[in-house]
Amino acid sequence: MSIAISEIFGPTIQGEGALIGVPTVFVRTGGCDYRCSWCDTLYAVEPRFKDDWAPMSAEAIMAEVRALSGDQPLLITLSGGNPALQPLDELLSLGHSLGYTFAMETQGSRAQDWFAQLDHLTLSPKPPSSGMAFNPARFDACLAAAGEQPRVTLKLVIADEADYQWARAVAADYPHLPLCLQPCNPAPATPEAPDLVTDLEALNARLRWLVDRATADRWFSARILPQLHVLIWNNERGV
Amino acid sequence: MSIAISEIFGPTIQGEGALIGVPTVFVRTGGCDYRCSWCDTLYAVEPRFKDDWAPMSAEAIMAEVRALSGDQPLLITLSGGNPALQPLDELLSLGHSLGYTFAMETQGSRAQDWFAQLDHLTLSPKPPSSGMAFNPARFDACLAAAGEQPRVTLKLVIADEADYQWARAVAADYPHLPLCLQPCNPAPATPEAPDLVTDLEALNARLRWLVDRATADRWFSARILPQLHVLIWNNERGV
Repeated sequence: MSIAISEIFGPTIQGEGALIGVPTVFVRTGGCDYRCSWCDTLYAVEPRFKDDWAPMSAEAIMAEVRALSGDQPLLITLSGGNPALQPLDELLSLGHSLGYTFAMETQGSRAQDWFAQLDHLTLSPKPPSSGMAFNPARFDACLAAAGEQPRVTLKLVIADEADYQWARAVAADYPHLPLCLQPCNPAPATPEAPDLVTDLEALNARLRWLVDRATADRWFSARILPQLHVLIWNNERGV
Repeated sequence: MSIAISEIFGPTIQGEGALIGVPTVFVRTGGCDYRCSWCDTLYAVEPRFKDDWAPMSAEAIMAEVRALSGDQPLLITLSGGNPALQPLDELLSLGHSLGYTFAMETQGSRAQDWFAQLDHLTLSPKPPSSGMAFNPARFDACLAAAGEQPRVTLKLVIADEADYQWARAVAADYPHLPLCLQPCNPAPATPEAPDLVTDLEALNARLRWLVDRATADRWFSARILPQLHVLIWNNERGV
């Protein structure tokens, strides 16, 4: 059962969400069932990049992670693309047996039994601005598959007022889930413009807007966090 | 028992440490037993600003917080100066009775019985670059006063290699404490230059250095986080 791997890099720090700042190695899988309008990892999403994705065994992935981390266990972050499309159960068992822990980020469109083996699961359904539709039944199936074992967080990306209203409604349906709001990066680097310099002023303005918007509504249950790696490394790959 | 208050503002988000991104109202007390070389809140530290600090009762402080938060309970962050110099037990009782929770940040130089009433306590002993000396006995007294109730985090600010080595040693002495490392802002705004524009490139370079330094050492138990408010609001007061 090989796993399609777009890239493995680190150790660096997690740049977003509930685990922001935590040292981690990223394992990014290739392939996605979504195509978000503002996707910042098209190289791991679009079929035209398929030849760049290496089919790897769980053993080969862990060998690479162990080399990067000097055999010192740390958090492995599974991202994509949509890592939920891959057969990751063996990787989780092998990594755990070596003392590593796992966080995974997925949009919640595909449930897998092995979600229950994760240590952290970030479910990030996509808002209207992405062009994708939120499917609550599939999302609930992901929650059910995860069960009680992983710490589950809801992360909602917000580009505009319509996304904000959508996020309020989704969050109200899952009041028991810890919640992170993240301002959308409107102009991510793309395969065609990998060196695009982010307009940090625009990005910061968006974060300030989101803080003002949420606090004016007295929406105090949501953490609001930017993508640190965009602020710090400007979308550069491999950090 | 009046409390010396430098400023009360919010709701905004916590910009640093383990609670980064959490909506909060800040209650900043006036007065400090330290004078760190790179202090970013001298207006709440130096005796020459004493006349700017309002003596307030717990009731008056909570009235202000309730007005700011529209009576909707949220996290109150107690900062300073050194808030551990103030009589805060009544404020904690009153706030809790209204549903508010409390996080406090202090250098760990002064212990108070009421630490045990806090929900979160960040102990941030100062590194060599501050010009202040770390006193382990006083720090341990703070830990003992806190007991089991608050979630205690160790936050270490790092300006240079000497601070980094010091941080490694301190962290090794408290392996059970969750740890955050924070790159020092070398040029904070001061009362004389309140509008100083932070050199974000220099600040980011320092964060990148710290991430590289810690990951090269395979120091994976420490979260590494910048001061978001500096990146986003550029040291501006009141946000």
